[in-house]
Amino acid sequence: MNTYKALDDCASWPAIAGTQPASLKTLLTEAAIRKRRMSAGGGLEYCYAAMDLADDTLALLYDAAAELDLLGQYRSLAGGAVMNQGEKRMVLHHLLRGEPAGPVVKDGRDYHAFYEKERARFSAFARAVREGKLRGSTGKPFSRVVQIGIGGSDLGPRALYLALEQWARERKLLTLRASFISNVDPDDANGVLADLDPESTLFILVSKSGTTQETLANEALVLARLSSVPGLKSSAHMVAVTSETSPLANNPSYLDSFYIDDFIGGRYSATSAVGGVILSLCLGPEAFAGILEGAAEADVLALSAEPGKNAALTDALIGVFQRNVLLRPSTAVLPYSQALSRFPAHLQQLDMESNGKQLRRDGKALRMASGPVVFGEPGTNGQHSFFQLLHQGSDPLPLQFIAFRKNQTGFDPAFEGSTARRKLNANLAAQIVAFALGKDDADPNKRFPGGRPSTLLVADELDPRSLGALLAHYENKVMFQGFCWNLNSFDQEGVQLGKVLTKQVLADGGPKDPALSAMASLLGAL
Amino acid sequence: MNTYKALDDCASWPAIAGTQPASLKTLLTEAAIRKRRMSAGGGLEYCYAAMDLADDTLALLYDAAAELDLLGQYRSLAGGAVMNQGEKRMVLHHLLRGEPAGPVVKDGRDYHAFYEKERARFSAFARAVREGKLRGSTGKPFSRVVQIGIGGSDLGPRALYLALEQWARERKLLTLRASFISNVDPDDANGVLADLDPESTLFILVSKSGTTQETLANEALVLARLSSVPGLKSSAHMVAVTSETSPLANNPSYLDSFYIDDFIGGRYSATSAVGGVILSLCLGPEAFAGILEGAAEADVLALSAEPGKNAALTDALIGVFQRNVLLRPSTAVLPYSQALSRFPAHLQQLDMESNGKQLRRDGKALRMASGPVVFGEPGTNGQHSFFQLLHQGSDPLPLQFIAFRKNQTGFDPAFEGSTARRKLNANLAAQIVAFALGKDDADPNKRFPGGRPSTLLVADELDPRSLGALLAHYENKVMFQGFCWNLNSFDQEGVQLGKVLTKQVLADGGPKDPALSAMASLLGAL
Repeated sequence: MNTYKALDDCASWPAIAGTQPASLKTLLTEAAIRKRRMSAGGGLEYCYAAMDLADDTLALLYDAAAELDLLGQYRSLAGGAVMNQGEKRMVLHHLLRGEPAGPVVKDGRDYHAFYEKERARFSAFARAVREGKLRGSTGKPFSRVVQIGIGGSDLGPRALYLALEQWARERKLLTLRASFISNVDPDDANGVLADLDPESTLFILVSKSGTTQETLANEALVLARLSSVPGLKSSAHMVAVTSETSPLANNPSYLDSFYIDDFIGGRYSATSAVGGVILSLCLGPEAFAGILEGAAEADVLALSAEPGKNAALTDALIGVFQRNVLLRPSTAVLPYSQALSRFPAHLQQLDMESNGKQLRRDGKALRMASGPVVFGEPGTNGQHSFFQLLHQGSDPLPLQFIAFRKNQTGFDPAFEGSTARRKLNANLAAQIVAFALGKDDADPNKRFPGGRPSTLLVADELDPRSLGALLAHYENKVMFQGFCWNLNSFDQEGVQLGKVLTKQVLADGGPKDPALSAMASLLGAL
Repeated sequence: MNTYKALDDCASWPAIAGTQPASLKTLLTEAAIRKRRMSAGGGLEYCYAAMDLADDTLALLYDAAAELDLLGQYRSLAGGAVMNQGEKRMVLHHLLRGEPAGPVVKDGRDYHAFYEKERARFSAFARAVREGKLRGSTGKPFSRVVQIGIGGSDLGPRALYLALEQWARERKLLTLRASFISNVDPDDANGVLADLDPESTLFILVSKSGTTQETLANEALVLARLSSVPGLKSSAHMVAVTSETSPLANNPSYLDSFYIDDFIGGRYSATSAVGGVILSLCLGPEAFAGILEGAAEADVLALSAEPGKNAALTDALIGVFQRNVLLRPSTAVLPYSQALSRFPAHLQQLDMESNGKQLRRDGKALRMASGPVVFGEPGTNGQHSFFQLLHQGSDPLPLQFIAFRKNQTGFDPAFEGSTARRKLNANLAAQIVAFALGKDDADPNKRFPGGRPSTLLVADELDPRSLGALLAHYENKVMFQGFCWNLNSFDQEGVQLGKVLTKQVLADGGPKDPALSAMASLLGAL
């Protein structure tokens, strides 16, 4: 029986709850841009100069954070307490990249050492493949790798791969190219396979339980395709990433298996073997180590009790203010970086699956709204799309910008007096100010209300370290927000009912429920 | 001076506004799944059996539709009235695929004939390229095509191309593969170019005005790259899609130019040369004609005054009910089709840029909320991601499912007793029912509140005709919703302020505003 409080149990909550948005016309100054800023690790800086809350409101939120003991809860979690109460599991993804609250040793297992041992194994494996020492069963070196997985086994690894694909290519590190098969829709797997030479392709099958319906169906489809290639031995073309107790572990169908455990949640698994095998194969084990290094830096900063030094905590509190005080139900993540094109989709899972809950950890219903809808696309693309609503739509929603001062690729000739990079970042500066300050006009159609708040994460360049810090920043932010709401961010019971009903549809004789039967019939699924 | 009403001016509005959501436990029956259904054209059916409004509420909404003369407004629009009042322009995208309200002839130009003439020109061009008669300047046949454009010149064409890529490949129609360069971030263009052989690549430069900053910067980057290829003549590798009055028109820098005009808004341009050139090149002019055929069917159905026969109108009214009566500020589009992976991004622009407004057409402020936040990812992927929040998060939000009964690709071996297609659609049936009905449980963490409404668009297969109907269904839905709110869906003043401030940042000496200057400096853009 836990005794955690929620934000609305805190002494400072009535004062926080009565706050109005502060005027950005007053707040967004040169001085604020200098002062409302702090390191987020890995070369990243967090800036909330364009956020519509006053300093004294933020101080009240820090008071609440202290009363809720957010840092103590994080320390417990990283130190091996059973913080996934629903599933009675530890939550150990921080141990994948460090030991921010010291070693976790249980029943003779040192968890950090275990994860490091697996990393050493898949690093060696990746080196053998990259150097051409380990080849396909027909003798060709591997040039492509395909990850078969869904949810956290897909979104995080895919977002990270795309984030560093051009970075690695520019540095001649991109030895293998990656593709991903996730959807049970067979057009997904067939489309990916049509572009590959199976003889030079390595597959990574990723399922912690080894029972994920989509992933096993896709494995079967891939194996059926491979079986038609003369001379190809499929077991030499597939490795598994799974838990040691799954049916995929130590299975002669696979060339090798790399392990995670029950304490690494799917959406928190990008820095485990789930992301590590494919990233080490494609970009090299050193690049993957750089991601872990940046993440570890962010994890340590997130322990800081000094308010102006803890970016993840500050970002979390600001998000809660937007959600529970200003009652804004959605937030957009807008990276001004094409390489982060799928990073919002990863954050969408991370945030919405972690905090899209109604139940507190004491089994009672939440009295306040929990996680927001998260969506986003890269800028400047979004400017030519949904930014219209962000500027002039009915309701303000908080925006989260991500930016870098340098390119990943080298070619950027000036055009009309400026490089494309400078144009990109000039656009972002302009958007932040336009959203915040707006503009009056005699023509009401050209009026911009302003008062539309944003935060900014900025680094010199998108490289493994800043990417790792970015990933961990959001993991820690979402964790702190879950603590604020006193909910369990680490289970996902909401996905279970659909699985049960799907089995009923697929069972012999079909489902008994007439509505389910009629819907399945309409969809041709009986 | 127009005298259009808004929904809240209607006689039936007080009764509509007082409505509570109807119980899905009562509504979602086998009979409802049979009856709450209608054709949406192109083989698509629209089903709202899982939508939480009672039949009498829908009847009141149809009354309001009649009072607002939604069909009359559509007829005026398609017939050439100046329905983009802000920019004083006609809105003629329906004319790209038919004449649902008869011919539009102004100042001696027959618009349908003009668009058809352009289509004939780019169809002939596409045939010459596909047959290898027209080749690159070094003699190689074209095998790749790259569209350079942003916003509507990118999202719609890209979504449609991806929707039919596997369909075309399976039918040996995929003669050229497409890529897209949109972002001013140079890592976008450099990444795309690194995968291409310029000698066998054709570029399509798309900008209606011929002045889009991102697109011209990307053109410059591409031309600089092409200039380093020995013997390559860039003007033989690039065509333009633009308006007849733009600097790109009749320009010897391009192999050819294909025209649209001011009456085709960017987000409504997928069925014009903006989408037509690239789709005709890649999939063949016949496939593009199929898209137009499906869209034309949907356009005609959207004129129907019989309530149960007009899917776009019904869908629009249901959306308005969700937004303005149940006050739900966001909606998810969830295609159970990997081929539609980027279709939600297109709809995000279509909807949020059209209806993310605060101003009525009479220049007064809206008294009710306008367009919602639109986001989405394909199923089943989303089930392993943000569906947790959709099932158990704080607030219900209306869901829009899209599904097909057949695969686009041929290979789909059964695994554990069912094909992947059957698994996919069984999952969708299960989700619709789980969202609607929920489930009680002794464990509060396993309780599903239900009452989470959805609609469904379903066809036998995703082919050009059903895709065209799907596209037009949403265009018409968004148009009807704009009419309900009495706003102008066809301008986008909200994007202008950012452009002005960007110019200030890039100007000599930088911006005068100290906050803008400080932000630009933080981002390295000065």
